[in-house]
Amino acid sequence: MAADDTAPARAWRVVLERIEGDLLDGRLAPGDRLPPERELAATLGVGRSSVREALRVLEVMGLIRTGTGSGPTSGAIIIATPRGGLAALLRLQVAAQGFPLSDVVATRLLLEQWVVGTLAESGAHDLSDVRATLAAMDDTTLTAQEFLALDAQLHLGLAEASGNAVVAASMAGLRTAIESYVQAGAARIPDWDAAATGLRAEHRGILQAIDAGEADLARSLVHDHITGYYAAAGLTRD
Amino acid sequence: MAADDTAPARAWRVVLERIEGDLLDGRLAPGDRLPPERELAATLGVGRSSVREALRVLEVMGLIRTGTGSGPTSGAIIIATPRGGLAALLRLQVAAQGFPLSDVVATRLLLEQWVVGTLAESGAHDLSDVRATLAAMDDTTLTAQEFLALDAQLHLGLAEASGNAVVAASMAGLRTAIESYVQAGAARIPDWDAAATGLRAEHRGILQAIDAGEADLARSLVHDHITGYYAAAGLTRD
Repeated sequence: MAADDTAPARAWRVVLERIEGDLLDGRLAPGDRLPPERELAATLGVGRSSVREALRVLEVMGLIRTGTGSGPTSGAIIIATPRGGLAALLRLQVAAQGFPLSDVVATRLLLEQWVVGTLAESGAHDLSDVRATLAAMDDTTLTAQEFLALDAQLHLGLAEASGNAVVAASMAGLRTAIESYVQAGAARIPDWDAAATGLRAEHRGILQAIDAGEADLARSLVHDHITGYYAAAGLTRD
Repeated sequence: MAADDTAPARAWRVVLERIEGDLLDGRLAPGDRLPPERELAATLGVGRSSVREALRVLEVMGLIRTGTGSGPTSGAIIIATPRGGLAALLRLQVAAQGFPLSDVVATRLLLEQWVVGTLAESGAHDLSDVRATLAAMDDTTLTAQEFLALDAQLHLGLAEASGNAVVAASMAGLRTAIESYVQAGAARIPDWDAAATGLRAEHRGILQAIDAGEADLARSLVHDHITGYYAAAGLTRD
């Protein structure tokens, strides 16, 4: 119980904290290369395997990229791709029941409403990618799976256009975390073609409200759009 | 260079995906114990070191707890403590410049406004912990650091009372990610005692608005409370 409080810091944590400290102090920045495993181990006085454990953590969290073919003597590169790390974390937490599905959906809802409200309130944003996705979704030969992939892209495009990287990464992560439920839900919708027609019209309505600068309308439309889909697809929503 | 797309899945990823799959299928649930490292390695046909790398990832993400004194033959226990994992991820991403500080603050702001608005709109919640923290903050002998620790606890208590685990974990993570900046900011406030008096009054005002069911007022007060502190402490806010 609380063994970590008294036990000496484990070697892999020492490595992790050292790299975090170097990032905070600016000694390491995106694009920099970490020293090779062997060198890190020698500098920090820990085993090679402890270094490798810390590097895996950083990799899954989206902080470094390690080349598979680069061999053990070349160091990993510092990157900063929050989306990957956050998506993996949220997916695992939902899988392990750390986050109830209904809380994930409610959080997605509040972020989406903030995004469209922010876009409607600020005139300065580029929605050309979002419009291109909207147009691509008009193809009536799309399978439900293809349609939903574009749907995710459209919502994420809006989040990115809002300019807030934390919100965009969180929305991407939350969507990934519930992707399997969203896909399974589509199979429960009796008339998918009719549903897709409705979703297309809803997307256009949201875009129009943003273009018209009507923040309250945009928020209300995106709210109904998301809760409507979850209700139709039989997903938990309480 | 997208090396992962063609390379065979690395051994530690195989372990990670297997455990995630078992969680999703319900073969593993919180409280269950993973097989010992040796057994996992044998079952999955990978090396012990690959198993250990995957376990570290799960541990930092808050998915398992490994006992330090438990030796290599006893397995890790599945837990689900999203807060720890999310806090570590966000802290590392802010350190690596994956998330601009201003986006972290803006996201905190939107979550906090959602929390107090939700609490004001729903009568059914227990704010006794929050009130206890509020009372503890009246102690004028608190250092700035002690005061800010209670402050974080108060805001997190509100998030928890809202009942959304994702929002509470995100808020805790965002706060942790910027903790060093918040603490450093306090030192830049010329008259800390006066600032603390103001913060106490603002907290009471927010609680009163929640108690009175005034959602808009609560949102507006928490907005001004947070942006006011960041402005006074000289933190980036645009």
